[in-house]
Amino acid sequence: MYVYLNNAATTRVDGRVLYRFSKFFRNLYENPMTSVYSPGAKEVEAEMEKARKEVSDLINASRKEIYFTSGGTESDNWAIKGIALNHWEEKGEIISTPIEHSAVLSSLKTVREWGFSVKFLHVDKFGMVDPDEVRKLITNKTILISVMHANNEIGTIEPIKEIGEIAREKEIIFHTDAVQTAAHIPIDVEEMNVDLLSMSAHKFYGPKGVGALYIREGVKITPFMDGGHQERGFRAGTHNVPGIIGMGEAAKIGLSEMDKEMKEILELKNYILERFEKIEGIYVNGHPEKRLPGNINISIEGVKAETMLLYLGLNGIIVSAGSACSAKEKTPSHVLKAIEIPEDLYYNTIRISLGKFNTFEEIEYFLEVFETGIKEYRRIKP
Amino acid sequence: MYVYLNNAATTRVDGRVLYRFSKFFRNLYENPMTSVYSPGAKEVEAEMEKARKEVSDLINASRKEIYFTSGGTESDNWAIKGIALNHWEEKGEIISTPIEHSAVLSSLKTVREWGFSVKFLHVDKFGMVDPDEVRKLITNKTILISVMHANNEIGTIEPIKEIGEIAREKEIIFHTDAVQTAAHIPIDVEEMNVDLLSMSAHKFYGPKGVGALYIREGVKITPFMDGGHQERGFRAGTHNVPGIIGMGEAAKIGLSEMDKEMKEILELKNYILERFEKIEGIYVNGHPEKRLPGNINISIEGVKAETMLLYLGLNGIIVSAGSACSAKEKTPSHVLKAIEIPEDLYYNTIRISLGKFNTFEEIEYFLEVFETGIKEYRRIKP
Repeated sequence: MYVYLNNAATTRVDGRVLYRFSKFFRNLYENPMTSVYSPGAKEVEAEMEKARKEVSDLINASRKEIYFTSGGTESDNWAIKGIALNHWEEKGEIISTPIEHSAVLSSLKTVREWGFSVKFLHVDKFGMVDPDEVRKLITNKTILISVMHANNEIGTIEPIKEIGEIAREKEIIFHTDAVQTAAHIPIDVEEMNVDLLSMSAHKFYGPKGVGALYIREGVKITPFMDGGHQERGFRAGTHNVPGIIGMGEAAKIGLSEMDKEMKEILELKNYILERFEKIEGIYVNGHPEKRLPGNINISIEGVKAETMLLYLGLNGIIVSAGSACSAKEKTPSHVLKAIEIPEDLYYNTIRISLGKFNTFEEIEYFLEVFETGIKEYRRIKP
Repeated sequence: MYVYLNNAATTRVDGRVLYRFSKFFRNLYENPMTSVYSPGAKEVEAEMEKARKEVSDLINASRKEIYFTSGGTESDNWAIKGIALNHWEEKGEIISTPIEHSAVLSSLKTVREWGFSVKFLHVDKFGMVDPDEVRKLITNKTILISVMHANNEIGTIEPIKEIGEIAREKEIIFHTDAVQTAAHIPIDVEEMNVDLLSMSAHKFYGPKGVGALYIREGVKITPFMDGGHQERGFRAGTHNVPGIIGMGEAAKIGLSEMDKEMKEILELKNYILERFEKIEGIYVNGHPEKRLPGNINISIEGVKAETMLLYLGLNGIIVSAGSACSAKEKTPSHVLKAIEIPEDLYYNTIRISLGKFNTFEEIEYFLEVFETGIKEYRRIKP
């Protein structure tokens, strides 16, 4: 049995998504930028704009506030660097968290080299930031606040709405990395007072290689990808047409089936957690309630993550340690360090991330294999 | 009849490319970065590395010198900005041409704002640069030379090998934008002494949304896309797996069928040019010999490009004015200005770009429609 429980790393493309974008490789393959003189390109452009509307609907934005990119990493790079570049002369301060995705953290490192400064918020043992601390850190030099919507490793959902209110009151641009939440839990950029929001299609059953940055109308940001006049002159490069159409379909499905999907995934997750409770020495990381429906992050006493991953893998079960983007690193997760789990559990932590294609049978099989494994490894441990 | 003669803007995906990448959406969909613990991801990684080898073979590079990006624009942005960022403290000078693609020109504009300076080479009436001028412009502050392999509008092929020799002798990093040439005419980074080379898959019958930057081993460049540890830590973001596999297949086909393809396309082009010679007031732009096989750029006396494009479009024939990336602009082409064609022909210029799927029947149809159009429009012109 093959059981894929690594949906936070990437997801299987929905069949409806594949169906909708497949004609854009060999039939409607024209470059939408040439629509001024080609009927075929005009059709491609219309389909692309339909997808843009679908993506905007997902987060309650308007069509013109969606800028397609190559993925979540580019969206994060653009948000951070684009705001920094727009304050090139005077520089300034950025407020963020120590548990952001590496796309944000590394971009922050770069803008520090450019002369900007970065202040990091504290997180509690659940990985939660305190909006009051955001208020305290704001100065008249603050140019940007960047706090992720939900953490990719431990699943904690941050108080974005509360931070957004403060950002709005203080008139500071507010970015959130919603790569883990878009099309999984409700997002409303109006209600949340968000100015910039990063999304990635392949995290919600769309294709890899495409994402979007929501940019609130009126927010001043410098382009990150220079060149042609695509995306109203703000993001150059020939449109990834099939990817964009696929992202639109994935967003449409995500929005219309979100309630059903959340409910089903939560049932599976709660079933797993109930069974985990019966095993000694399993600690669930992240916030107990404010968390992603599909995320389970656990530290296992006496069993190394590497051992468990290999054992599960041999049985056809795919889970992960930390995030995909740092899967090959040997250093402990910056998120686990930030929430201060006991040091001896750094390398004993795995992430189980559920998706809409997972079935109860798969979960039952996973639990049986997992429970057997725990017993065996603890028994043979010196 | 539908006749697509805009292959310099984008191309139809080859059926073999589509066939090869199609299983990576729903079957082999795992994230290759998780290959340390997943057999499925390991298979994806192996297929991706096969594609990397195929792309490297196309330009006689080694596998480890290929870095996948989201396309030609990103590759150009990275080459220019990455070298600039690597000379952040001391700044420096970049030598380039006024006829580069907007992805290069706009990136140069950005690094000028960062404090770098840019010197532009002259081009002759064919759009050709003089390697001797490159030698003259080099100073001890020069950090990069960026000259495109072939121009996207007029098709002129630049003396890359000669410039490469000078760059090598003076120990200056040499970038070439090969978006129009890769898989169309032979490229050998060793023979040409190129250090950085940009490619885009959708220009050679691969998918949109994927490209590559060749970085010669030992060349010091700063990453452009910050985040995870993909691409040996130099280009973050989840791999566009189907795109990368598709680019590999397109490169493999391009390399093995290049001679045949060039020959067939040249035959079609020469046939068109022979017929054009019989029409008064048609001027062929670009170099008469050193040019892309599939490119024809003409200025037509007494007929506006816009009129001709609309007329051809109504007859199912797709050609272009200038490049796709500036199709919606109303300013004259920077390339036509640089080669100093008569000002009254700025808006009378169209590009016909042939591809391997074009047939003799299509060309015959195009010529008949075109010739009729010229006669009609010249007759009714006030």
